[in-house]
Amino acid sequence: MNKIFLIPNMLGKGDINFVIPKGVQEEIKALRYFFVENIRTTRRYLKKIDPEFPIDDCHFFEINTHTTQQDIDFYFSNLSTKVVGIISESGVPAVADPGAHIVAIAHKKGWQVIPLVGPSSILLALMASGMNGQNFSFVGYLPKDKILREKKIKHLENISRKLNQTQIFIETPYRNRLLYESLVHTCAPDTRLCIAKEISTPEENILTLPIFKWQKQKPDIHKKNVIFLLDAFYKYM
Amino acid sequence: MNKIFLIPNMLGKGDINFVIPKGVQEEIKALRYFFVENIRTTRRYLKKIDPEFPIDDCHFFEINTHTTQQDIDFYFSNLSTKVVGIISESGVPAVADPGAHIVAIAHKKGWQVIPLVGPSSILLALMASGMNGQNFSFVGYLPKDKILREKKIKHLENISRKLNQTQIFIETPYRNRLLYESLVHTCAPDTRLCIAKEISTPEENILTLPIFKWQKQKPDIHKKNVIFLLDAFYKYM
Repeated sequence: MNKIFLIPNMLGKGDINFVIPKGVQEEIKALRYFFVENIRTTRRYLKKIDPEFPIDDCHFFEINTHTTQQDIDFYFSNLSTKVVGIISESGVPAVADPGAHIVAIAHKKGWQVIPLVGPSSILLALMASGMNGQNFSFVGYLPKDKILREKKIKHLENISRKLNQTQIFIETPYRNRLLYESLVHTCAPDTRLCIAKEISTPEENILTLPIFKWQKQKPDIHKKNVIFLLDAFYKYM
Repeated sequence: MNKIFLIPNMLGKGDINFVIPKGVQEEIKALRYFFVENIRTTRRYLKKIDPEFPIDDCHFFEINTHTTQQDIDFYFSNLSTKVVGIISESGVPAVADPGAHIVAIAHKKGWQVIPLVGPSSILLALMASGMNGQNFSFVGYLPKDKILREKKIKHLENISRKLNQTQIFIETPYRNRLLYESLVHTCAPDTRLCIAKEISTPEENILTLPIFKWQKQKPDIHKKNVIFLLDAFYKYM
Protein backbone atom coordinates (compact mmCIF):
# COMPACT_ATOMS: atom_id res chain seq x y z
CA MET A 1 0.00 0.00 0.00
CA ASN A 2 1.19 3.53 -0.76
CA LYS A 3 2.26 5.39 2.36
CA ILE A 4 2.74 8.97 3.43
CA PHE A 5 4.70 9.61 6.62
CA LEU A 6 4.11 12.83 8.58
CA ILE A 7 7.57 13.68 9.84
CA PRO A 8 8.27 15.88 12.88
CA ASN A 9 11.07 18.44 12.91
CA MET A 10 12.81 20.12 15.86
CA LEU A 11 11.38 23.39 17.25
CA GLY A 12 14.74 25.14 17.39
CA LYS A 13 18.18 24.49 18.76
CA GLY A 14 18.70 21.69 21.25
CA ASP A 15 19.38 17.97 21.37
CA ILE A 16 17.51 16.03 18.69
CA ASN A 17 17.36 12.98 20.95
CA PHE A 18 15.08 14.83 23.37
CA VAL A 19 12.44 15.55 20.73
CA ILE A 20 12.61 12.95 17.95
CA PRO A 21 12.28 9.27 18.96
CA LYS A 22 15.05 6.97 17.73
CA GLY A 23 12.59 4.83 15.74
CA VAL A 24 11.22 7.94 14.01
CA GLN A 25 14.77 8.93 13.02
CA GLU A 26 15.17 5.44 11.52
CA GLU A 27 11.91 5.79 9.55
CA ILE A 28 13.12 9.11 8.14
CA LYS A 29 16.47 7.59 7.15
CA ALA A 30 14.67 5.08 4.94
CA LEU A 31 12.86 7.77 2.90
CA ARG A 32 14.05 9.43 -0.32
CA TYR A 33 10.95 11.36 -1.45
CA PHE A 34 9.79 14.37 0.53
CA PHE A 35 7.26 17.16 0.44
CA VAL A 36 9.06 20.03 2.23
CA GLU A 37 8.58 23.69 3.10
CA ASN A 38 12.21 24.56 2.40
CA ILE A 39 14.74 22.32 0.66
CA ARG A 40 17.87 23.91 2.15
CA THR A 41 16.81 23.63 5.80
CA THR A 42 15.36 20.15 5.23
CA ARG A 43 18.74 18.99 3.89
CA ARG A 44 20.35 20.35 7.06
CA TYR A 45 17.82 18.50 9.23
CA LEU A 46 18.40 15.20 7.40
CA LYS A 47 22.17 15.65 7.89
CA LYS A 48 21.52 16.15 11.61
CA ILE A 49 19.69 12.82 11.74
CA ASP A 50 22.50 11.14 9.83
CA PRO A 51 25.68 12.91 8.67
CA GLU A 52 25.85 10.24 5.92
CA PHE A 53 22.29 10.88 4.68
CA PRO A 54 22.36 10.37 0.87
CA ILE A 55 20.93 13.80 0.08
CA ASP A 56 21.86 13.52 -3.60
CA ASP A 57 19.62 10.48 -3.97
CA CYS A 58 16.67 12.37 -2.48
CA HIS A 59 13.80 14.05 -4.29
CA PHE A 60 12.31 17.17 -2.74
CA PHE A 61 9.06 18.81 -3.71
CA GLU A 62 8.77 22.28 -2.22
CA ILE A 63 5.33 23.34 -1.00
CA ASN A 64 4.45 26.92 -0.19
CA THR A 65 1.54 29.34 -0.42
CA HIS A 66 1.79 29.31 -4.24
CA THR A 67 1.50 25.52 -4.52
CA THR A 68 -1.74 24.55 -6.23
CA GLN A 69 -3.77 21.37 -5.99
CA GLN A 70 -2.72 20.69 -9.61
CA ASP A 71 0.97 20.90 -8.61
CA ILE A 72 0.43 18.35 -5.84
CA ASP A 73 -1.62 16.05 -8.07
CA PHE A 74 1.11 16.23 -10.72
CA TYR A 75 3.77 15.36 -8.15
CA PHE A 76 1.76 12.45 -6.73
CA SER A 77 1.12 11.02 -10.20
CA ASN A 78 4.78 11.28 -11.20
CA LEU A 79 6.20 9.59 -8.12
CA SER A 80 8.39 6.61 -8.85
CA THR A 81 7.99 5.48 -5.24
CA LYS A 82 5.03 4.55 -3.12
CA VAL A 83 6.49 5.88 0.12
CA VAL A 84 6.74 9.63 0.73
CA GLY A 85 7.43 11.86 3.69
CA ILE A 86 6.23 15.33 4.51
CA ILE A 87 8.35 17.65 6.67
CA SER A 88 7.56 21.16 7.87
CA GLU A 89 10.06 23.79 8.97
CA SER A 90 9.50 23.19 12.67
CA GLY A 91 7.35 20.85 14.73
CA VAL A 92 4.80 18.54 13.17
CA PRO A 93 3.39 19.01 9.67
CA ALA A 94 -0.28 19.91 9.11
CA VAL A 95 -0.80 21.48 12.56
CA ALA A 96 -0.30 25.28 12.53
CA ASP A 97 1.84 24.57 9.48
CA PRO A 98 1.27 23.55 5.86
CA GLY A 99 0.66 19.93 4.94
CA ALA A 100 -3.00 19.27 5.67
CA HIS A 101 -3.92 19.76 2.02
CA ILE A 102 -1.42 17.11 0.91
CA VAL A 103 -2.69 14.70 3.56
CA ALA A 104 -6.26 15.30 2.34
CA ILE A 105 -5.22 14.39 -1.20
CA ALA A 106 -3.40 11.30 0.08
CA HIS A 107 -6.61 10.12 1.81
CA LYS A 108 -8.54 10.70 -1.41
CA LYS A 109 -6.05 8.58 -3.32
CA GLY A 110 -6.36 5.81 -0.71
CA TRP A 111 -2.82 6.14 0.62
CA GLN A 112 -2.01 4.99 4.14
CA VAL A 113 -1.34 8.05 6.32
CA ILE A 114 1.14 7.53 9.18
CA PRO A 115 1.78 10.31 11.73
CA LEU A 116 5.13 10.07 13.54
CA VAL A 117 5.71 11.30 17.10
CA GLY A 118 7.60 14.55 17.63
CA PRO A 119 7.38 17.99 19.21
CA SER A 120 4.32 20.22 18.74
CA SER A 121 4.74 23.57 20.45
CA ILE A 122 0.95 23.90 20.79
CA LEU A 123 0.58 20.55 22.53
CA LEU A 124 3.62 21.00 24.79
CA ALA A 125 2.40 24.49 25.76
CA LEU A 126 -1.04 23.14 26.60
CA MET A 127 0.42 20.33 28.77
CA ALA A 128 2.60 22.81 30.64
CA SER A 129 -0.01 25.57 31.02
CA GLY A 130 -1.96 23.93 33.83
CA MET A 131 -5.11 24.93 31.95
CA ASN A 132 -8.00 22.72 30.85
CA GLY A 133 -6.68 20.09 28.44
CA GLN A 134 -10.03 18.29 28.20
CA ASN A 135 -11.55 21.16 26.22
CA PHE A 136 -9.38 23.53 24.21
CA SER A 137 -9.25 25.52 21.00
CA PHE A 138 -6.32 26.59 18.83
CA VAL A 139 -7.30 29.64 16.78
CA GLY A 140 -4.03 30.62 15.09
CA TYR A 141 -3.18 34.31 14.69
CA LEU A 142 -5.24 37.18 16.14
CA PRO A 143 -6.04 40.30 14.04
CA LYS A 144 -3.19 42.77 13.42
CA ASP A 145 -5.40 45.81 13.95
CA LYS A 146 -5.38 46.84 17.63
CA ILE A 147 -9.13 47.40 17.97
CA LEU A 148 -10.04 44.17 16.19
CA ARG A 149 -7.38 42.29 18.17
CA GLU A 150 -8.75 43.47 21.51
CA LYS A 151 -12.29 42.68 20.40
CA LYS A 152 -11.13 39.17 19.50
CA ILE A 153 -9.38 38.76 22.86
CA LYS A 154 -12.59 39.76 24.67
CA HIS A 155 -14.47 37.22 22.56
CA LEU A 156 -11.99 34.43 23.34
CA GLU A 157 -12.07 35.31 27.04
CA ASN A 158 -15.88 35.08 27.00
CA ILE A 159 -15.85 31.68 25.28
CA SER A 160 -13.24 30.42 27.73
CA ARG A 161 -15.31 31.58 30.71
CA LYS A 162 -18.57 30.20 29.34
CA LEU A 163 -17.33 26.81 28.06
CA ASN A 164 -14.34 26.21 30.40
CA GLN A 165 -12.30 26.00 27.19
CA THR A 166 -8.61 26.90 27.01
CA GLN A 167 -7.95 29.35 24.15
CA ILE A 168 -4.59 28.97 22.38
CA PHE A 169 -3.14 31.44 19.87
CA ILE A 170 0.11 32.69 18.36
CA GLU A 171 1.66 35.83 16.94
CA THR A 172 4.59 36.58 14.63
CA PRO A 173 7.64 36.99 16.92
CA TYR A 174 8.20 40.73 16.34
CA ARG A 175 4.57 41.46 17.24
CA ASN A 176 4.51 39.49 20.51
CA ARG A 177 4.89 42.59 22.67
CA LEU A 178 1.86 44.24 21.05
CA LEU A 179 -0.22 41.14 21.75
CA TYR A 180 1.00 41.05 25.37
CA GLU A 181 -0.01 44.73 25.77
CA SER A 182 -3.49 44.02 24.38
CA LEU A 183 -3.91 41.01 26.66
CA VAL A 184 -3.01 42.77 29.93
CA HIS A 185 -5.05 45.78 28.84
CA THR A 186 -8.17 43.84 27.86
CA CYS A 187 -8.55 40.78 30.11
CA ALA A 188 -10.04 40.56 33.59
CA PRO A 189 -7.44 40.65 36.41
CA ASP A 190 -8.05 37.04 37.50
CA THR A 191 -8.03 35.55 33.99
CA ARG A 192 -5.02 33.26 33.68
CA LEU A 193 -2.53 33.80 30.86
CA CYS A 194 0.21 31.31 30.01
CA ILE A 195 3.17 32.56 28.01
CA ALA A 196 5.14 29.59 26.68
CA LYS A 197 8.45 30.64 25.11
CA GLU A 198 10.94 28.74 22.92
CA ILE A 199 9.52 25.36 23.88
CA SER A 200 11.84 22.33 23.88
CA THR A 201 14.93 24.50 23.36
CA PRO A 202 17.56 25.58 25.92
CA GLU A 203 15.73 28.96 26.14
CA GLU A 204 12.42 27.35 27.15
CA ASN A 205 10.33 29.27 29.67
CA ILE A 206 6.68 28.56 30.44
CA LEU A 207 4.77 30.61 32.95
CA THR A 208 1.10 30.83 33.91
CA LEU A 209 0.01 33.83 35.95
CA PRO A 210 -3.20 35.83 36.36
CA ILE A 211 -3.39 39.03 34.33
CA PHE A 212 -2.92 41.23 37.43
CA LYS A 213 0.52 39.63 37.94
CA TRP A 214 1.47 39.85 34.26
CA GLN A 215 0.72 43.60 34.40
CA LYS A 216 3.67 43.98 36.80
CA GLN A 217 5.94 41.35 35.26
CA LYS A 218 6.72 42.17 31.63
CA PRO A 219 7.93 39.04 29.81
CA ASP A 220 11.02 38.96 27.59
CA ILE A 221 9.28 37.80 24.40
CA HIS A 222 10.40 40.20 21.67
CA LYS A 223 11.30 38.21 18.53
CA LYS A 224 10.91 34.91 20.42
CA ASN A 225 8.76 31.94 19.47
CA VAL A 226 5.82 32.14 21.83
CA ILE A 227 2.48 30.40 22.35
CA PHE A 228 -0.22 32.21 24.33
CA LEU A 229 -2.94 30.40 26.32
CA LEU A 230 -5.90 31.97 28.06
CA ASP A 231 -8.23 30.61 30.73
CA ALA A 232 -11.00 32.76 32.16
CA PHE A 233 -12.95 29.93 33.81
CA TYR A 234 -10.64 29.00 36.68
CA LYS A 235 -10.62 31.71 39.35
CA TYR A 236 -7.09 32.58 40.48
CA MET A 237 -6.97 32.94 44.26
CA MET B 1 14.74 25.77 41.15
CA ASN B 2 12.02 23.20 41.85
CA LYS B 3 10.97 21.32 38.74
CA ILE B 4 7.99 19.31 37.57
CA PHE B 5 8.42 17.16 34.47
CA LEU B 6 5.37 16.23 32.36
CA ILE B 7 6.13 12.71 31.27
CA PRO B 8 4.61 11.03 28.21
CA ASN B 9 3.49 7.41 28.24
CA MET B 10 2.88 5.02 25.33
CA LEU B 11 -0.61 4.87 23.74
CA GLY B 12 -0.75 1.07 23.73
CA LYS B 13 1.39 -1.80 22.57
CA GLY B 14 4.26 -1.14 20.21
CA ASP B 15 7.92 -0.19 20.27
CA ILE B 16 8.72 2.42 22.92
CA ASN B 17 11.55 3.79 20.76
CA PHE B 18 9.04 4.97 18.16
CA VAL B 19 7.11 7.14 20.61
CA ILE B 20 9.39 8.19 23.49
CA PRO B 21 12.63 10.01 22.58
CA LYS B 22 15.83 8.56 24.05
CA GLY B 23 16.58 11.77 25.98
CA VAL B 24 13.10 11.72 27.52
CA GLN B 25 13.68 8.14 28.66
CA GLU B 26 16.90 9.32 30.31
CA GLU B 27 15.09 12.19 32.09
CA ILE B 28 12.53 9.71 33.43
CA LYS B 29 15.29 7.38 34.66
CA ALA B 30 16.67 10.16 36.87
CA LEU B 31 13.34 10.71 38.70
CA ARG B 32 12.18 9.03 41.92
CA TYR B 33 9.05 11.06 42.81
CA PHE B 34 5.95 10.74 40.66
CA PHE B 35 2.34 11.84 40.51
CA VAL B 36 0.61 8.93 38.74
CA GLU B 37 -2.85 7.75 37.70
CA ASN B 38 -2.14 4.13 38.59
CA ILE B 39 0.88 2.88 40.53
CA ARG B 40 0.86 -0.68 39.18
CA THR B 41 0.85 0.25 35.48
CA THR B 42 3.35 3.07 36.08
CA ARG B 43 5.77 0.56 37.64
CA ARG B 44 5.40 -1.59 34.53
CA TYR B 45 6.12 1.42 32.28
CA LEU B 46 9.24 2.36 34.26
CA LYS B 47 10.49 -1.23 33.97
CA LYS B 48 9.95 -1.00 30.21
CA ILE B 49 12.19 2.07 30.08
CA ASP B 50 14.80 0.33 32.20
CA PRO B 51 14.49 -3.25 33.46
CA GLU B 52 16.81 -2.18 36.31
CA PHE B 53 14.65 0.81 37.34
CA PRO B 54 14.94 1.10 41.16
CA ILE B 55 11.18 0.94 41.75
CA ASP B 56 11.65 0.37 45.49
CA ASP B 57 13.42 3.71 45.83
CA CYS B 58 10.53 5.51 44.12
CA HIS B 59 7.68 7.45 45.70
CA PHE B 60 4.31 7.39 43.98
CA PHE B 61 1.38 9.66 44.71
CA GLU B 62 -1.78 8.39 43.08
CA ILE B 63 -4.15 11.00 41.65
CA ASN B 64 -7.71 10.23 40.66
CA THR B 65 -11.15 11.81 40.65
CA HIS B 66 -11.21 11.75 44.47
CA THR B 67 -7.92 13.64 44.87
CA THR B 68 -8.52 17.05 46.43
CA GLN B 69 -6.51 20.25 46.18
CA GLN B 70 -5.63 19.71 49.87
CA ASP B 71 -4.19 16.25 49.08
CA ILE B 72 -1.97 17.73 46.36
CA ASP B 73 -0.89 20.66 48.54
CA PHE B 74 -0.03 18.21 51.34
CA TYR B 75 2.03 16.09 48.97
CA PHE B 76 3.90 19.09 47.53
CA SER B 77 4.73 20.44 50.99
CA ASN B 78 6.00 17.05 52.21
CA LEU B 79 8.28 16.38 49.27
CA SER B 80 11.87 15.69 50.23
CA THR B 81 12.90 16.38 46.64
CA LYS B 82 12.61 19.39 44.38
CA VAL B 83 12.20 17.37 41.19
CA VAL B 84 8.94 15.53 40.47
CA GLY B 85 7.38 13.83 37.47
CA ILE B 86 3.77 13.40 36.48
CA ILE B 87 2.69 10.43 34.35
CA SER B 88 -0.74 9.60 32.99
CA GLU B 89 -1.98 6.17 31.93
CA SER B 90 -1.49 6.81 28.24
CA GLY B 91 -0.19 9.67 26.13
CA VAL B 92 0.74 13.02 27.64
CA PRO B 93 -0.48 14.21 31.04
CA ALA B 94 -2.88 17.16 31.35
CA VAL B 95 -4.31 16.83 27.83
CA ALA B 96 -7.55 14.77 27.76
CA ASP B 97 -6.16 13.24 30.95
CA PRO B 98 -5.68 14.32 34.57
CA GLY B 99 -2.73 16.45 35.59
CA ALA B 100 -3.64 20.03 34.66
CA HIS B 101 -4.66 20.78 38.24
CA ILE B 102 -1.28 19.69 39.58
CA VAL B 103 0.51 21.77 36.95
CA ALA B 104 -1.61 24.79 37.94
CA ILE B 105 -0.54 24.37 41.57
CA ALA B 106 3.11 23.98 40.50
CA HIS B 107 2.89 27.33 38.62
CA LYS B 108 1.37 28.96 41.71
CA LYS B 109 4.24 27.68 43.84
CA GLY B 110 6.75 29.04 41.32
CA TRP B 111 8.03 25.64 40.17
CA GLN B 112 9.61 25.28 36.74
CA VAL B 113 7.25 23.28 34.49
CA ILE B 114 8.93 21.17 31.80
CA PRO B 115 6.83 19.32 29.18
CA LEU B 116 8.55 16.33 27.58
CA VAL B 117 7.89 15.15 24.01
CA GLY B 118 5.78 12.04 23.48
CA PRO B 119 2.67 10.72 21.76
CA SER B 120 -0.67 12.53 21.98
CA SER B 121 -3.42 10.67 20.18
CA ILE B 122 -5.32 13.95 19.62
CA LEU B 123 -2.36 15.66 17.98
CA LEU B 124 -1.35 12.64 15.88
CA ALA B 125 -4.96 12.21 14.73
CA LEU B 126 -5.16 15.87 13.74
CA MET B 127 -1.89 15.67 11.76
CA ALA B 128 -3.10 12.58 9.92
CA SER B 129 -6.67 13.74 9.31
CA GLY B 130 -5.86 16.11 6.45
CA MET B 131 -8.22 18.61 8.11
CA ASN B 132 -7.51 22.19 9.14
CA GLY B 133 -4.70 22.20 11.72
CA GLN B 134 -4.52 26.01 11.82
CA ASN B 135 -7.85 26.23 13.62
CA PHE B 136 -9.19 23.32 15.66
CA SER B 137 -11.10 22.47 18.80
CA PHE B 138 -10.95 19.43 21.09
CA VAL B 139 -14.23 19.09 22.97
CA GLY B 140 -13.81 15.76 24.81
CA TYR B 141 -16.83 13.45 25.11
CA LEU B 142 -20.20 14.04 23.47
CA PRO B 143 -23.48 13.50 25.40
CA LYS B 144 -24.54 9.89 26.09
CA ASP B 145 -28.21 10.58 25.33
CA LYS B 146 -28.92 9.99 21.63
CA ILE B 147 -31.00 13.13 21.07
CA LEU B 148 -28.56 15.39 22.91
CA ARG B 149 -25.63 13.73 21.14
CA GLU B 150 -27.10 14.33 17.69
CA LYS B 151 -27.94 17.91 18.64
CA LYS B 152 -24.31 18.40 19.72
CA ILE B 153 -23.02 16.86 16.47
CA LYS B 154 -25.19 19.28 14.46
CA HIS B 155 -23.81 22.14 16.56
CA LEU B 156 -20.18 21.05 16.00
CA GLU B 157 -20.83 20.63 12.27
CA ASN B 158 -22.23 24.17 12.11
CA ILE B 159 -19.24 25.65 13.96
CA SER B 160 -16.86 23.74 11.70
CA ARG B 161 -18.63 25.02 8.57
CA LYS B 162 -18.84 28.60 9.82
CA LEU B 163 -15.32 28.96 11.27
CA ASN B 164 -13.38 26.44 9.12
CA GLN B 165 -12.49 24.81 12.44
CA THR B 166 -11.77 21.09 12.80
CA GLN B 167 -13.84 19.53 15.59
CA ILE B 168 -12.16 16.73 17.56
CA PHE B 169 -13.93 14.45 20.05
CA ILE B 170 -13.75 11.05 21.69
CA GLU B 171 -16.01 8.34 23.08
CA THR B 172 -15.58 5.47 25.52
CA PRO B 173 -14.52 2.47 23.39
CA TYR B 174 -17.69 0.38 23.87
CA ARG B 175 -19.86 3.32 22.74
CA ASN B 176 -17.90 4.09 19.55
CA ARG B 177 -20.43 2.36 17.31
CA LEU B 178 -23.31 4.46 18.67
CA LEU B 179 -21.34 7.62 17.99
CA TYR B 180 -20.56 6.43 14.45
CA GLU B 181 -24.28 5.76 13.87
CA SER B 182 -25.18 9.25 15.09
CA LEU B 183 -22.52 10.84 12.88
CA VAL B 184 -23.55 9.16 9.63
CA HIS B 185 -27.20 9.76 10.49
CA THR B 186 -26.82 13.45 11.36
CA CYS B 187 -24.11 15.01 9.21
CA ALA B 188 -24.33 16.33 5.65
CA PRO B 189 -23.17 13.85 2.96
CA ASP B 190 -20.09 15.91 1.99
CA THR B 191 -18.94 16.64 5.56
CA ARG B 192 -15.61 14.90 6.09
CA LEU B 193 -15.19 12.52 9.02
CA CYS B 194 -11.82 11.14 10.12
CA ILE B 195 -11.81 8.00 12.24
CA ALA B 196 -8.36 7.52 13.78
CA LYS B 197 -7.98 4.15 15.49
CA GLU B 198 -5.33 2.79 17.87
CA ILE B 199 -2.82 5.48 16.96
CA SER B 200 0.90 4.68 17.20
CA THR B 201 0.23 0.98 17.80
CA PRO B 202 0.51 -1.95 15.36
CA GLU B 203 -3.31 -1.74 14.92
CA GLU B 204 -3.22 1.91 13.80
CA ASN B 205 -5.69 2.89 11.10
CA ILE B 206 -6.56 6.45 10.14
CA LEU B 207 -9.08 7.22 7.46
CA THR B 208 -10.79 10.41 6.30
CA LEU B 209 -13.85 10.05 4.10
CA PRO B 210 -17.00 12.07 3.42
CA ILE B 211 -20.10 10.94 5.33
CA PHE B 212 -21.70 9.47 2.18
CA LYS B 213 -18.78 7.04 1.92
CA TRP B 214 -18.77 6.21 5.64
CA GLN B 215 -22.46 5.28 5.32
CA LYS B 216 -21.43 2.37 3.07
CA GLN B 217 -18.18 1.48 4.83
CA LYS B 218 -18.77 0.57 8.47
CA PRO B 219 -15.53 0.87 10.46
CA ASP B 220 -14.28 -1.81 12.86
CA ILE B 221 -14.13 0.36 15.99
CA HIS B 222 -15.97 -1.57 18.70
CA LYS B 223 -13.97 -1.43 21.94
CA LYS B 224 -11.06 0.28 20.15
CA ASN B 225 -9.32 3.52 21.08
CA VAL B 226 -10.64 6.00 18.56
CA ILE B 227 -10.47 9.74 17.92
CA PHE B 228 -13.14 11.33 15.73
CA LEU B 229 -12.54 14.49 13.66
CA LEU B 230 -15.12 16.45 11.71
CA ASP B 231 -14.74 19.03 8.96
CA ALA B 232 -17.78 20.58 7.31
CA PHE B 233 -15.95 23.49 5.65
CA TYR B 234 -13.99 21.69 2.96
CA LYS B 235 -16.25 20.43 0.19
CA TYR B 236 -15.48 16.84 -0.77
CA MET B 237 -15.49 16.46 -4.55
